[in-house]
Order: sequence, then structure tokens, then C-alpha cells
Amino acid sequence: MTETIDFQPGPACARRLDEQDDLASFREAFVLEDPDLIYLDGNSLGRLPRRTVERMHSAVTEEWGRDLIHGWNKSWYDAPRRVGEKIAHLVGAAPGQVLVADSTSVNLFKLTLAALALRPGRSRIVSDALNFPSDLYVLQGCIRLLGERHRLELAPSPDGIAVDAQTLADAIAADTALVALSHVAFKSGFLHDAAVVTDQAHRSGALALWDLSHSVGVVSIELDRWGVDLAVGCTYKYLNGGPGAPAFLYVRRDLQETALSPIWGWFGQREPFAFDLDYAPAPGVARFLAGTPPMLSLLALESGLDLLLEAGIERIRRKSLRLTSYLVYLVDTVLAPLGFTLGSPRDPARRGSHVSLRHPEGYRINRALIEEMAVLPDFREPDHIRLGLAPLYTTFAEVWAAVERIRQVVEEGRYRRYGAERLPVT
Amino acid sequence: MTETIDFQPGPACARRLDEQDDLASFREAFVLEDPDLIYLDGNSLGRLPRRTVERMHSAVTEEWGRDLIHGWNKSWYDAPRRVGEKIAHLVGAAPGQVLVADSTSVNLFKLTLAALALRPGRSRIVSDALNFPSDLYVLQGCIRLLGERHRLELAPSPDGIAVDAQTLADAIAADTALVALSHVAFKSGFLHDAAVVTDQAHRSGALALWDLSHSVGVVSIELDRWGVDLAVGCTYKYLNGGPGAPAFLYVRRDLQETALSPIWGWFGQREPFAFDLDYAPAPGVARFLAGTPPMLSLLALESGLDLLLEAGIERIRRKSLRLTSYLVYLVDTVLAPLGFTLGSPRDPARRGSHVSLRHPEGYRINRALIEEMAVLPDFREPDHIRLGLAPLYTTFAEVWAAVERIRQVVEEGRYRRYGAERLPVT
Repeated sequence: MTETIDFQPGPACARRLDEQDDLASFREAFVLEDPDLIYLDGNSLGRLPRRTVERMHSAVTEEWGRDLIHGWNKSWYDAPRRVGEKIAHLVGAAPGQVLVADSTSVNLFKLTLAALALRPGRSRIVSDALNFPSDLYVLQGCIRLLGERHRLELAPSPDGIAVDAQTLADAIAADTALVALSHVAFKSGFLHDAAVVTDQAHRSGALALWDLSHSVGVVSIELDRWGVDLAVGCTYKYLNGGPGAPAFLYVRRDLQETALSPIWGWFGQREPFAFDLDYAPAPGVARFLAGTPPMLSLLALESGLDLLLEAGIERIRRKSLRLTSYLVYLVDTVLAPLGFTLGSPRDPARRGSHVSLRHPEGYRINRALIEEMAVLPDFREPDHIRLGLAPLYTTFAEVWAAVERIRQVVEEGRYRRYGAERLPVT
Repeated sequence: MTETIDFQPGPACARRLDEQDDLASFREAFVLEDPDLIYLDGNSLGRLPRRTVERMHSAVTEEWGRDLIHGWNKSWYDAPRRVGEKIAHLVGAAPGQVLVADSTSVNLFKLTLAALALRPGRSRIVSDALNFPSDLYVLQGCIRLLGERHRLELAPSPDGIAVDAQTLADAIAADTALVALSHVAFKSGFLHDAAVVTDQAHRSGALALWDLSHSVGVVSIELDRWGVDLAVGCTYKYLNGGPGAPAFLYVRRDLQETALSPIWGWFGQREPFAFDLDYAPAPGVARFLAGTPPMLSLLALESGLDLLLEAGIERIRRKSLRLTSYLVYLVDTVLAPLGFTLGSPRDPARRGSHVSLRHPEGYRINRALIEEMAVLPDFREPDHIRLGLAPLYTTFAEVWAAVERIRQVVEEGRYRRYGAERLPVT
């Protein structure tokens, strides 16, 4: 799927790439309040799809305000499954395996405990040092909850960019119950070969659980074909679901009757409106629902998802690779002389859709970009400026202009106006 | 707080009560799309506050569409605490003890496991047969997760209306770790004396956890004064937060440093943006946050909450008691001769804000009310028609008219047009 493109310096190359972009028209599907803003944080919070504005208005005024409790029968009750099936198209899952529910952390908690119960007597959980800290926290909490009978082993990443495939394979052993990894690393953008790692897990008798938060919607994912057991993912990044939009989970069909959620919620009950006093899990993946889902946030997500389905994940991935490759080219030619190093894999096949730039003054440079250059990336400790490239709305011209503005900030010393003490949050 | 009112038959009495209603003006704060509809399901899904329409539009277009990732610093990151403090005013909690997060089921799960860890060696969990089945499911799931070392004991309710105080007290014994009850029973509307039961729990060395879903916003609640340890509650009923709006939880201040959530989420981490690989719980109640909250649903909730704070819980409770007492009077005088019995307590002090009518043809009567009489209650098996009276927008004239229409349905045999086979959902 990777292609070799002959990039050139200067804005003409960016213009040409934009002219050749068969997804270019999708940009107009998003609200672009400030046309000068170069938004490179779609990997953290995707832009607002125009259609979502109207959808939310009708969800509030018609479905809630007018239909009242009937909304549950009309479109709400089925929404976790219905929206799950849309996501299923993006992750290569046949129907009946994907649901929208809760947050990524809560879903990871549910699936981790379900997995460990399916592998009694095995004590090792394998992850890596590039995983979301938030995911490691959940795994640590599960271990504590189960009485410290498991231990978490992290495959190291000496360069902070990638995890060596052999090192990871070696960590997976006969006592491994679960391999739980992020498909794309949140900081470096490293993309695991999920098919290979899943196979390694299975050959050791372990289950494989993937967090797709940074890959869903930008990377080709084939959960069924790869034989993945369990997966979770976030919907407010490349799926443009809105701030804190509910997350999704995947449970492979032939695990569904034996796997059990630790949270016995009424939406996961066999007959929630029979009001039996004893819990009986619903058949299929529905048993992994817990409480009443946050419907307004869920409907906002649904609206944005359709855009990805219309674009198609193959075209999206192709543009993503062009965007990141172009950015890497510009980093090498324009920014490397200014002290920047690439904090992401050079091999496009091992890269998600964001690129990390490292610079000793990264924090102050990031602040200058936001405060005075109308460029909005984000910063991750200790020195990573993350540039998220969202194929549905990021243009090649924006990539070129962003690099120019980064150059300007450093060459003109603009970052020196800002302190290095960390401001709160994000 | 209870008062004796001399109710009379006929609509004049309802008119007089409405004229004396000092909360009458709040009705206009809600969207009333169909002025003929008598909506008596505000205990399941509260009406849409007018101001929430505008709030959601600006949350979507300005906070998400325009501010993008900056929204987190501007108003989102703090929202679980900020909205929690508003709810704190409704439940008698000093600052720093209430949060909005997840669903009621997930919060109950977190607090139950936290409580059981604080009472090692004690094996009994006491609840009652009137509790939400959904709450019992969560408790059952916790017991299973912890290896069946606990058992759930349900104080019975022979009449399905109330739980005898002495029977409940007797169930709480030296081996009781946790007393977990719904403050107001979802079917009968029975209101526990939470202060007394909490004290009984404490005298046995147990912790008390209250589900306030059917009491918050309509009943006077004094968590701090009663010495309650833990509480959870729903926000889409009398708090008018919108379908599936996120739930809340309360952790008594002096338990906060020893209690630990089983779900180690990054929003509950000490420094979520330091991205440490090891979890350290945040100080205070914040450690009970899990993943990223569903922000649109959370902001919709915030908007509706202000109405309750403006009305004041004392006035709300006073009107609620008048509404339910008036309805009970009409049931006795108009509906009892038609075969209805009261499925709710007669003592106003032991009643929440909904009233349950029982009738052998309850299911078909409920369907006729919805299909042809513009009355919208809900039905709970086997024969309960629940009439939820929401003091901010239910009028006495509506109560009178609803009873008239119920009478009409039965006297004219209109319910016979409907089958008794159950339709799916709600």
C-alpha cells in the first residue's frame, strides 16, 4: 500500500498534492470557523462535521423535546448496536461484534477482566512502554482488584519510537494470559503489526486485546481476518464524535458466549424490561453494555461516522500515508537543520496518522505556534510536538504552511517569549 | 413537612391548587411541544429545559466547532467537578464530595467494590426486594468478581409497596459489609428513612450506599447530616439532564483517602497529563473519575440543573407532596371503584414523587392512555401504571385530567382494543 512520491520543496508541491487529492471535497463537510487556523490536533479531538450541528439540534428538540420517552423506542435503545455496526465497517468486523458503550478506559477494564477470566492460571499480561499510560493504569487496577495474582510486563522501546517485534514476541510466554497493546502509539505514532502480534499471542495460548484509539478511522484494520479476540477504541479522535464521545468495543463472535463483563449492567441483561431480580447476560456482544448510554453524545458520534464510511478507509489510509510522508520529507529538509528530530517511525507502513517532532525547546515552540502562529498541534512530555493529520480535512497546503511557521518560530526566536513551566491540562 | 389539605372532587380544586403553586412559573422553562400531552414520565426521562436547546447549540458550534481542543481548558476539563458541586446542593453535601461520571451502574460498581475493600472479612451485602433490578445485577456481578466470598441478602417486601423498618434492621448484622439501597423504590415510590438506616448500618460497622436516582431533585436529601458513606444517582429523571445523561457519585470526605476505585482511569489519576506509566490516585473524590466524560451529554445536564437550584429543593418537595397526595385522593375517590389499587405508600413522608396504580388490566390501560388519550405514564410489570409527578412542570390540572382520562379508558372499555402481549422496551 505504500507508494513512493517525489516530493519537492516549496508550496507548488503541496498545491499539486491537493489537486490530486480525491478526498479534498470532504473538507467542506466540516465546520471551519477560522479559515486561517491550521488544526493539527484531530488525533486528540476531531473537527465538528457540519451535519452534526443539525443532527444535534433535532436530537435535542425533536427526539428529546417532542418525542420524550418514546425516543427510546424510536432510535435510542438500539443506538449502541446500530452505531457499533457502523464502526464495524471501519475495523473489519462482521456484524454482531461491535458496540458503542462507556469510555475507552471502562471498556478496557471490562474486556481485560473478561479475558483474564478466560485464561485462569496464567499470570502474565504483556503490553509495551509505548502504550497509553491510561491503558496501563487500567491494567494495573485490574491486577490489584484480582489480588495481585497477575503481573504486567512491558516490552521496552529504547528509542521511544518503536517496539522491536522480536522483543515483544519474546515477552509473550506460556504463562501469558493477555497481550494488550495500543495499535498506534499515542506519542510516536508507531503502528504495530497487529496480525503478527495476535498470531504470536495465540500460539502461546494468550488472548489479544487491541486499543484502536489512534488507528481507527485512519489505518486499515481487519479484526476478523487477523483473528483478534478483543478490541476497544476511542471515537472523538479521527471518528469526529465530539468531546468525550462514547467509546466502542469488539468481542470476537466465538468468545461471546463464554466471556462475561464484570459490570453486570441492565443494558447487558437478557431482558432488561422484565425487571427480574437475577442477572442473566444477554446473548452476544450486548452483554458488554453496562448502564444507560449518554444518548446525545452517542448520536453526535453517529452523525460524524457516516463521513468516514462515505470516504472509505482505503482512500483515507492512502491519503494519510501521503500526508505523513510529505511531513517527514519537510521535517528532514526544513526542520532538521533547526534542531528537530523525528519522533516517529520512518517506515510509512509502521506509522499511524500523526507525526511527532522532538526539540529541546518543544514546549515553548508549541506554545508560540498556538499563541501567535494559528497552528494548533499538541505537546506531550518531555519534548514531543504532535502533528495529527486527519485525511478528511487536513490539506497538504496546511502541512507545508505549518512547517513554514514552525521554521519561523525557531529562526526568529519567537518561542523565547514563552516560559517552559507547564500550564495545566492538554 | 407534611400538610393536610382539604381536597375536593372536580376541576375547581385543581385550579385552586395551581393558583397557589409558587413553582407554577417554572413550567414555562420547559419545551412543551404538544400542549395537550399530559406527560407523567418525568421520573424516567425529564422534559427538555428550553435553555438546554441554546446551551447545546453553543456547546456544539462554539465550544467544539470553534474552540476545538481549547474547549478542554475553557470549560470541559473541570465539568465533572463543577456539575458535581451543583448536584451537591441538591443532596446536602459540602463541596468536594460529588462528581459527575459514567452511568449509575458503573458508579455503583465502583463504589460497591471500594466499600467491600474497606470492610474486609465481612461477607454480607444487604439490600431489599424493592431495589432497582439493575442495582441488584451490579451487586451480583461484584460478588462474582470477588470470587463468591460475599452474599446478597434482600429484605423482603410482602406487599410490594414498602419494606418494614424492623425487618431491614434485622437483616443488618455483624457480618454486614455494605447496606446498598435505593432511596426511593422505582416501582412503588417507597421512600426509605435513609438517616435511620444509615445509622443502623454504622452501628453494625457496615457502610451505607444510597442510590438516589428516584429521589434526587424531588426529595430533601441530607447526605452529610445523615452520615451517608457513599451514594450514586441518575440525572435524566427529575434533574432533566437528557437521555442517558451521565450519573453522579458521592464519597464522604473522610473515606476519600482510603477508598479506591477499581477502575483506574486517567481522569482519576493524580497528574493525568504527566503521562506517568504508573497509576497514582488523585486526591479526594476525583479518583473516582474513570475515562474521558461524554461532554455534550454532561453540558446538557448542567444547563437543566440550574432550574432546580433556582426553585430550591424545599419548595419542590412541598409541591411534590401536594401533587402525590392529590393524586392519591383522586385514586381513592375516582379510580378505586373501577378496580384500581394504590401501589404506593399512603404516608406522604414515605413517598417519592411518583405514584403507582395497580389494575389487572394495567398494561392495556396504559397502552390506551398513550395511544388515544394523550397521557404518557409508563408501565412496570406485572400491573403497575407509574405516574411520575415532576414539580417543576406537572400541574394539578394535569393530575385531575389524567385521572379523568384513566376513568374514561376503563369505563368506556377502550383498553380492550389493545393486546396484552408486551411490546418491546420501556
